[in-house]
Amino acid sequence: VGNRAPLPGEFALIRKYFAPLAAGFSGALDLEDDAATYAVPSGHELVLTADALVEGRHYLASDPADLIARKMLRVNLSDLAAKGAKPVGYLMTTALGPDIDEAWIAKFAAGLAADQSEYGISLMGGDTVATPGPTTLSVTALGIVPVGRALRRRGAKPGDRLFVSGTIGDGILGLKVLRGELLDLGSSPREALAERYHLPQPRLSLGAALLAGGDVTAAMDVSDGLVADAGHIGEASRCGLIIHADRVPLSAGAQEALAEDLDLLPVLLSGGDDYEILFTAGRGFVAPESGVPVVEIGEVVSGSGVKVLDRDRAEILLKVGGWQHF
Amino acid sequence: VGNRAPLPGEFALIRKYFAPLAAGFSGALDLEDDAATYAVPSGHELVLTADALVEGRHYLASDPADLIARKMLRVNLSDLAAKGAKPVGYLMTTALGPDIDEAWIAKFAAGLAADQSEYGISLMGGDTVATPGPTTLSVTALGIVPVGRALRRRGAKPGDRLFVSGTIGDGILGLKVLRGELLDLGSSPREALAERYHLPQPRLSLGAALLAGGDVTAAMDVSDGLVADAGHIGEASRCGLIIHADRVPLSAGAQEALAEDLDLLPVLLSGGDDYEILFTAGRGFVAPESGVPVVEIGEVVSGSGVKVLDRDRAEILLKVGGWQHF
Repeated sequence: VGNRAPLPGEFALIRKYFAPLAAGFSGALDLEDDAATYAVPSGHELVLTADALVEGRHYLASDPADLIARKMLRVNLSDLAAKGAKPVGYLMTTALGPDIDEAWIAKFAAGLAADQSEYGISLMGGDTVATPGPTTLSVTALGIVPVGRALRRRGAKPGDRLFVSGTIGDGILGLKVLRGELLDLGSSPREALAERYHLPQPRLSLGAALLAGGDVTAAMDVSDGLVADAGHIGEASRCGLIIHADRVPLSAGAQEALAEDLDLLPVLLSGGDDYEILFTAGRGFVAPESGVPVVEIGEVVSGSGVKVLDRDRAEILLKVGGWQHF
Repeated sequence: VGNRAPLPGEFALIRKYFAPLAAGFSGALDLEDDAATYAVPSGHELVLTADALVEGRHYLASDPADLIARKMLRVNLSDLAAKGAKPVGYLMTTALGPDIDEAWIAKFAAGLAADQSEYGISLMGGDTVATPGPTTLSVTALGIVPVGRALRRRGAKPGDRLFVSGTIGDGILGLKVLRGELLDLGSSPREALAERYHLPQPRLSLGAALLAGGDVTAAMDVSDGLVADAGHIGEASRCGLIIHADRVPLSAGAQEALAEDLDLLPVLLSGGDDYEILFTAGRGFVAPESGVPVVEIGEVVSGSGVKVLDRDRAEILLKVGGWQHF
């Protein structure tokens, strides 16, 4: 299949590139077995999340393989962060397309190794197959939380306030930079935005602190876009949300881009790939010390849907919808 | 993309077809959340296994979607069975190709529902995306075992005996039937063999009984072929195995096919897709009552590799290798 040098066989690939990624996790039995074992620490329960990525849709064939690997892990760690979970490890299946060569796999594995070390997680198992189509990656990430304590999307109540971490819109702006847009920006903000797109920062310390504080009523990570994800919290909690656009935190690069082109505002508010934590909490909430800034951007109301208001409390109608995976 | 009627959006698909599959599992939160939670019962640990399936490689685009779903689950349940695990549920990612229409998804979901009910498991989470390539499915299955008790590939010792459950070779013969071969067989054995290929029987009750008995030194399920999988046990246990070909249990259909064509013997012994349990145990082992027959087919020896002997203890050299996934 295809025009690459033939890959080593499945078992050789696993031994050479994937087994070392499981070395830190004894339950993976060096990937020599069909299944891994894992004992959840007492008083804790599992948090599980799964994602699929298709070359050409979720990343580009020309993206560096190590960055693909790291973003894949971080997107899943971001889901765990929004639950307040401590990450443990992941299972991964790879369907490798005709253009994948051994150098690609080596670089991909190096990216996984880098972020395993960064986040203290291990590969726990998986499967490696070939496909004549685009490379398709699937990850199931495992984390743990004290039993019954996971943060959830449902639970927001009218009167609660709406918060978000970090900055919003850098993901979509980074994608625009990588596509050769936003040429009026200087090279330093362009690089910073591209980096935000390639390497999200899962807000694990913040998630853990929010869970420990006990005041959060609903939480999720911003992956489909701020407005769409606020809508998800509203739907799951059966209430409405108001977002004050002028309170939404923007990075220096995003502020500069917005100053150049005011039409970017709805793009920032609806673009995806932010991987910040969006959450609601009652009146008494005080943001914890976690190294990640948190800003109040709105409130929970009765009803349904998301309203975005400008500085004068006039509604901003967004033409751009949230990201649907197809 | 493609020439089918447009699918409902991602969220609509999930609500209509996948959320009902998670209804039996409260930790999935109706798939409204990004992550599921699961509390492992006290005294137990998780067993985790993952598989990827690519249309055109692991199943045919023309295969009935409900059978694709059921085989996918059963193959993973078979991995859990060989560990002695009780299955709990699964996460699934689907990358749907251009030819998938809503009728396909409805049938696929009906197949999942049928086997969830058959095996007492639930969908726990997942992701649904589109691909321009072949449909690609990935499953992570979860089971539980008493802590530290999972059956493993390593642990066989010289002097142990080698056993296998059920019958061997029906999977590869069933595939041949579906390809229009083995036309000399009657229609009844042809149907039985095709059914074995489409619907493996994960040996969960046997796996649980083997774990409870405590005498098994190594175990795995036969998916790559009897001889190749015996080799996997040998490699993990650092020893060799002898298989007596005349003791390998064959179904009536396989016996009939072999009587017609003696050259099928190496095919039966090396074909994959049997999903029986292959295991080793010491001298005192007595097969448990589990509803699944177990036959002694060989022994563990020092050294390495797998030797297949005929009735006269002459070595049968197999030209056909085991199934590698690429």
